[in-house]
Amino acid sequence: MTELLGKPVADEITESLKPEILSLKQKGIVPTLAVIRVGAREDDLAYERGLKKRFENAKCNVKIIELPEDVTQGVLDAAVASADEDPQIDGILMFRPLPKSLTDKNILNTISAVKDVDGMGKANMADIFSGAGEGHAPCTAEAVIEMLKHHNIEIKGKRVTVVGRSLVIGKPVSMLLLKENATVKVCHTKTEDLKAECQWADIVVACAGKAKMLDATYFRAGQTVIDVGMNVDEEGKLCGDVDFASVSEVVDAITPVPRGVGSVTTSVLLRAVVNNAKLR
Amino acid sequence: MTELLGKPVADEITESLKPEILSLKQKGIVPTLAVIRVGAREDDLAYERGLKKRFENAKCNVKIIELPEDVTQGVLDAAVASADEDPQIDGILMFRPLPKSLTDKNILNTISAVKDVDGMGKANMADIFSGAGEGHAPCTAEAVIEMLKHHNIEIKGKRVTVVGRSLVIGKPVSMLLLKENATVKVCHTKTEDLKAECQWADIVVACAGKAKMLDATYFRAGQTVIDVGMNVDEEGKLCGDVDFASVSEVVDAITPVPRGVGSVTTSVLLRAVVNNAKLR
Repeated sequence: MTELLGKPVADEITESLKPEILSLKQKGIVPTLAVIRVGAREDDLAYERGLKKRFENAKCNVKIIELPEDVTQGVLDAAVASADEDPQIDGILMFRPLPKSLTDKNILNTISAVKDVDGMGKANMADIFSGAGEGHAPCTAEAVIEMLKHHNIEIKGKRVTVVGRSLVIGKPVSMLLLKENATVKVCHTKTEDLKAECQWADIVVACAGKAKMLDATYFRAGQTVIDVGMNVDEEGKLCGDVDFASVSEVVDAITPVPRGVGSVTTSVLLRAVVNNAKLR
Repeated sequence: MTELLGKPVADEITESLKPEILSLKQKGIVPTLAVIRVGAREDDLAYERGLKKRFENAKCNVKIIELPEDVTQGVLDAAVASADEDPQIDGILMFRPLPKSLTDKNILNTISAVKDVDGMGKANMADIFSGAGEGHAPCTAEAVIEMLKHHNIEIKGKRVTVVGRSLVIGKPVSMLLLKENATVKVCHTKTEDLKAECQWADIVVACAGKAKMLDATYFRAGQTVIDVGMNVDEEGKLCGDVDFASVSEVVDAITPVPRGVGSVTTSVLLRAVVNNAKLR
């Protein structure tokens, strides 16, 4: 069994950006991501720390725009609009879900398509769907593709089962895999025989958001498993949607959680921000 | 074997619209579709005739905006913009592909989302992708769902293979089927074992655009086949992507071509135009 680690993939991406970041610096430009955070949820803060570390190591900036949990929609909207207009900001990431009293619907379409580096607005969704390849896909979906490519796992013509159909990961990763010429099967809570549908695949992408829901009985030898889940198990430990301990005994290759796909996501985000900074 | 005909589905839709069309008429409103046609391709003309007949029977209008094949981009763009601004026009359909000297890219995003009744602009694509259900899907994709529902073929939890991944039908119909809670597998030219992938399904939606490419060896008893293909065979006759003669001997239910899905498409379009007219 090969453990597919995220770090070498992330390192390769960040390494490749160094000359560009240096050349931007010589022009006085520091690629900058604005993070909009409402309240202080622990998982948001954890992700924020990871982001800051990655960006600082690469000599790029993260500007945290922190708003209280009881912020009004008007103030939040204005903060987003202001970040969008700021020429010193190259990309905007807003943590979601927002508190229930707020809506992200208009906000996501306020952010200009270029700065919408996590691909959540309509323009980018249309691009992901059409496969035009001009916009930003959600970084985690992009990270799944980077993971497979870096580890030389063939996608073209391969059978891929995606477990989960969220707008954040299941649907966009399905579109990206289709673009890479995989035969893509999208499964979800209403799928009748999920075991058979997983067994069928050469590659399984687990993104249902349910701790350890896929155990060894869902898999067979010869498969690659990409676990996008980020859950907390009964012992309070971070874990994926796949039961790594048992499944890693069965399949050919699998990403751990943590140290898997999640590690690649921030590098994909960094790359999008650096690419945008070149357009300043 | 049950032959799934389009006519009863189309009739049910048009019949249900009658009271609304009458009530609009009493307010002096006649639901109107603008058709933009560049040149005079035989398949465009055939579709146009079908449209006119359907709309006239329902006492609605089709306004043909005919442009010569050598029209300039500027004149075409202006014609589209003018239709979009015209308050007497409730929906716009532009025949594609356009001649090679022209591009539809900007045009599709010039048409306002509401009037884009065949769901080809970015706003509608994003809606189809997200499953928000607020916009227009391409009418043929919508017609596939109508066909299944009318004939009481369960979609929820069922295994559906979609053969084809075009932006006009394969991708949108996959999203609509997913929204109906099917387990959806998208196949295409790079799929390695298309026979096995079709055999797996409860429902096969054929939309590859290749005459009779799926013969009886791709199917088994118990399946439903929806043939969206519209091709011309070696004898010059209209035919689908499925070899009806042999496949109809094997499967439980199948749509013929012609007299299948195609008959439903114009009714779906009519419904969209009537619904828009209510917004005037």
